[in-house]
Amino acid sequence: MAFHLDRNAYGKQAIRLSKIIRRPDHHEIRHISVNVSLKGDFDTVHTIGDNTKVLPTDTMKNTVYALAKDKFTASIEEFGLHLADHFLSNNPQVSEVDIEITEFSWKRMTIDGAPHPHSFIDGGSEKHEAHIKKNRQQTTLSAGIKDLLILKTTDSGFENYIKDQYTTLKETADRIFSTQCEVSWTYDGLPPNPGQLYNEIRNNLLHTFATHKSLSVQHTLYAMGENALSDFPSIREITLKMPNKHHIPFNLQQFGIDNENEIFIATDEPYGYITGTLTRE
Amino acid sequence: MAFHLDRNAYGKQAIRLSKIIRRPDHHEIRHISVNVSLKGDFDTVHTIGDNTKVLPTDTMKNTVYALAKDKFTASIEEFGLHLADHFLSNNPQVSEVDIEITEFSWKRMTIDGAPHPHSFIDGGSEKHEAHIKKNRQQTTLSAGIKDLLILKTTDSGFENYIKDQYTTLKETADRIFSTQCEVSWTYDGLPPNPGQLYNEIRNNLLHTFATHKSLSVQHTLYAMGENALSDFPSIREITLKMPNKHHIPFNLQQFGIDNENEIFIATDEPYGYITGTLTRE
Amino acid sequence: MAFHLDRNAYGKQAIRLSKIIRRPDHHEIRHISVNVSLKGDFDTVHTIGDNTKVLPTDTMKNTVYALAKDKFTASIEEFGLHLADHFLSNNPQVSEVDIEITEFSWKRMTIDGAPHPHSFIDGGSEKHEAHIKKNRQQTTLSAGIKDLLILKTTDSGFENYIKDQYTTLKETADRIFSTQCEVSWTYDGLPPNPGQLYNEIRNNLLHTFATHKSLSVQHTLYAMGENALSDFPSIREITLKMPNKHHIPFNLQQFGIDNENEIFIATDEPYGYITGTLTRE
Amino acid sequence: MAFHLDRNAYGKQAIRLSKIIRRPDHHEIRHISVNVSLKGDFDTVHTIGDNTKVLPTDTMKNTVYALAKDKFTASIEEFGLHLADHFLSNNPQVSEVDIEITEFSWKRMTIDGAPHPHSFIDGGSEKHEAHIKKNRQQTTLSAGIKDLLILKTTDSGFENYIKDQYTTLKETADRIFSTQCEVSWTYDGLPPNPGQLYNEIRNNLLHTFATHKSLSVQHTLYAMGENALSDFPSIREITLKMPNKHHIPFNLQQFGIDNENEIFIATDEPYGYITGTLTRE
Repeated sequence: MAFHLDRNAYGKQAIRLSKIIRRPDHHEIRHISVNVSLKGDFDTVHTIGDNTKVLPTDTMKNTVYALAKDKFTASIEEFGLHLADHFLSNNPQVSEVDIEITEFSWKRMTIDGAPHPHSFIDGGSEKHEAHIKKNRQQTTLSAGIKDLLILKTTDSGFENYIKDQYTTLKETADRIFSTQCEVSWTYDGLPPNPGQLYNEIRNNLLHTFATHKSLSVQHTLYAMGENALSDFPSIREITLKMPNKHHIPFNLQQFGIDNENEIFIATDEPYGYITGTLTRE
Repeated sequence: MAFHLDRNAYGKQAIRLSKIIRRPDHHEIRHISVNVSLKGDFDTVHTIGDNTKVLPTDTMKNTVYALAKDKFTASIEEFGLHLADHFLSNNPQVSEVDIEITEFSWKRMTIDGAPHPHSFIDGGSEKHEAHIKKNRQQTTLSAGIKDLLILKTTDSGFENYIKDQYTTLKETADRIFSTQCEVSWTYDGLPPNPGQLYNEIRNNLLHTFATHKSLSVQHTLYAMGENALSDFPSIREITLKMPNKHHIPFNLQQFGIDNENEIFIATDEPYGYITGTLTRE
Repeated sequence: MAFHLDRNAYGKQAIRLSKIIRRPDHHEIRHISVNVSLKGDFDTVHTIGDNTKVLPTDTMKNTVYALAKDKFTASIEEFGLHLADHFLSNNPQVSEVDIEITEFSWKRMTIDGAPHPHSFIDGGSEKHEAHIKKNRQQTTLSAGIKDLLILKTTDSGFENYIKDQYTTLKETADRIFSTQCEVSWTYDGLPPNPGQLYNEIRNNLLHTFATHKSLSVQHTLYAMGENALSDFPSIREITLKMPNKHHIPFNLQQFGIDNENEIFIATDEPYGYITGTLTRE
Repeated sequence: MAFHLDRNAYGKQAIRLSKIIRRPDHHEIRHISVNVSLKGDFDTVHTIGDNTKVLPTDTMKNTVYALAKDKFTASIEEFGLHLADHFLSNNPQVSEVDIEITEFSWKRMTIDGAPHPHSFIDGGSEKHEAHIKKNRQQTTLSAGIKDLLILKTTDSGFENYIKDQYTTLKETADRIFSTQCEVSWTYDGLPPNPGQLYNEIRNNLLHTFATHKSLSVQHTLYAMGENALSDFPSIREITLKMPNKHHIPFNLQQFGIDNENEIFIATDEPYGYITGTLTRE
């Protein structure tokens, strides 16, 4: 009946930080949320309350703000690598550092036809994410997009599926396809310019979504992953999570009105949830 | 010790509807949430459970979907006016109809350098709102913007305020000004093209926010309202609600680092909340 | 085309505070969120950015924490009255102070059959609210309950309503009645023990909800208000807001199964929304 | 540069269902949310859009409502086992079924001193969870608690931790310990009465939390897992996730007031996040 402490980790989440980068003729605003998590030799912390190996999560928070001054100057991927290196180098009791950074989207305002030097507007629900996992042997860098809310009004169908005694869904060759998707990919090594690469991969994913003739969510999910892997050799593996944001045709027939695929009920729940990972062989 | 039923209302909220408008060479997607509320002669409904004057809220929902087919073809303001008219005309027991419509923002994707005919991406947290209040005598039309998340990195200060025994805030001539604001305005009568007018008023508000030299949130709030009233004679009254999304300088001095107005803690709570209404004399 | 600043207010919202009250043999935990809002002679703040009459919202926050030490010892109603008095007494430029306090619900744990002296568990979504509005002439005290999520599985029907061309709802003499209701009432003057009175009124409202034979939401709403006014002479006016949390019978007939009022789809949207105010004559 | 589809799954989430169980003298209300997820031979669904092996997620939803009539009569663990068995038995293309059920907490009202037969009130944020993972070889049953919001006002400290150049946290032998924790455990086989067992394990966890002399979150997390494993031989492994809900002493000293561990700022972000898994050897 003996047991032991197995997997464990601790850290600080939701360290919310903004930075103004002051260029000669304009400002940039960066707005992020950072999670720090440590694994290591923490058995006695748990078993006897020995805190002598514990770096407080409050100190992690302070450290993120302090390092942001000099080290957060380009992509969140690069800032994350600095943070991981700092915590691993300064804490011999730690075997692995996980840094997750989420960047919120701000769009520069256009005022009187020109980009404004210091005014910004919300850039949408979409967020850029970076995840660094660093131990004494290696560093793994992943990036991704969260809450990417996209929709197409045609070139999407769902037919020829299994029918059983509980089937009521009608087949359709033309439906709305909408998803608040999450995509993450892991690089093979550390790419030279992860910020620019992120934008290119994001555009590639949107291009596939927009132009694919979709026979199912799975079919489009795979095509998005396939194109990203084909076009970006530095990606080793890509995972897509695609919750359906259903738009269901409203039954107007009951009122003697034809609904020619025009009027829909937009629903949140329940929702289909499709996930898949494509990886190089 | 007698009492009576005073103000009362009932209706359906969050009727979520999407519509594809099929143009020859492209689609439009409209995505809205509708609230319907009725006031009228409903005393016996409450006092003795007499439902013979009650139009069920489920029927209100069905009606919104049914009328959307032919009547939701332009702005939400115009669709709302149709809905209000329908419910008032068909229900003699009703003295006032309130219709609120919120439109979610979808932005057409640009693919291969061109606007895509049927693919869209989330256009931000910002929503367009219309509010119609119609009784047997008159119709009042209001419009507005909700969850407009905006930020400027300079041209904002806060100084010369009252100091007392509980003051710890430091004066600053240069701070981040960010707000998730809500603006609503009431028209004098029914303007001819409310959809286009909405866009013009929205641009006017953003222009003032971006270019104003702000001495306080109140100061900018007033300037935004002032310019809107000056430039749009059809607005009778405008209300702005400006919750502060604080970005607080992080104390790096304690670590021997200068924070030259660069590194901030982004917080949600607590928050300043400033509201004001400007009205024509 | 002239205009002027009309209604306006400013303050701090979501000042989240907890307090341990240390009794000889046990602790109490109080957990609240406070909103402070001021109205007054603030025209020049808006029009020319003159801050000399502005008490910063940051100072309001500090004041709430500072006064909590000695003044938050009993009900939130009493603490709110102290806060309103402080801000009005110390700020001659202020004509009205609004204090809103929300108290979160913590329930003492029962351990080994006895109430534990210092351990607590979440007491539900329900919150106690107090609202004090104080100007140079008078003080108005309101109290209420927010997010009171209640449900009854029978003694609720909805029949004999209007049918029109868009009606699809079926009449029922037996349905689930669930609502996440908000009730607020205003006292005639300042009652001697508002904390205890709150609990008595809350129990009265639950009693009516549980035992009423409901012919509609309106019918039960009125009965709850009627009993509260009858039983508590210190209440001058009571407002109930009752959003329906619909539980809709699932159509099992389509699979050859009888649904004898057993299986329901629990939905959030759309929802019926019924409001009413009862006031003494 | 070849790649392939690796891990993938699909299903329906947030199937929200309520059921009235009608006893001779009272009703029970059950309120759940169900997730169904399938893994299997779905390569061609992704690669060529072949839907002939796809059971639509809409059918999964219908199935859950249909089976609830006869099979949801006791614990969510038992209902989940029925659902998993149904989907695996009827779908030869499926290799694994994952069923997750969340049960919302409703508490019977006490009216006039007695339990009311059919009226209920929200039982708190806490939810009971069951997770069944079934493939052609075996069935794994896990249970757990989500959003268990608990707090103790003493018997918690945090001292003797690492200090470095970024440390500002003060050591304390007496602090508030609050967490919105998530606990899940996996059974060794299928226990005979999982509903009752759940309640016993829940009480055991609360007992440890309340009575432990905590030297850190990790220390209490481990004690809670240790006692559960010691007292319940049917648990094979237990995982606890403990986000800190910080209550931070407010600095009253700056206003010349002593804060004798009485007044705190209740914050949501940032927050410490501690996780650990204890497993039998």
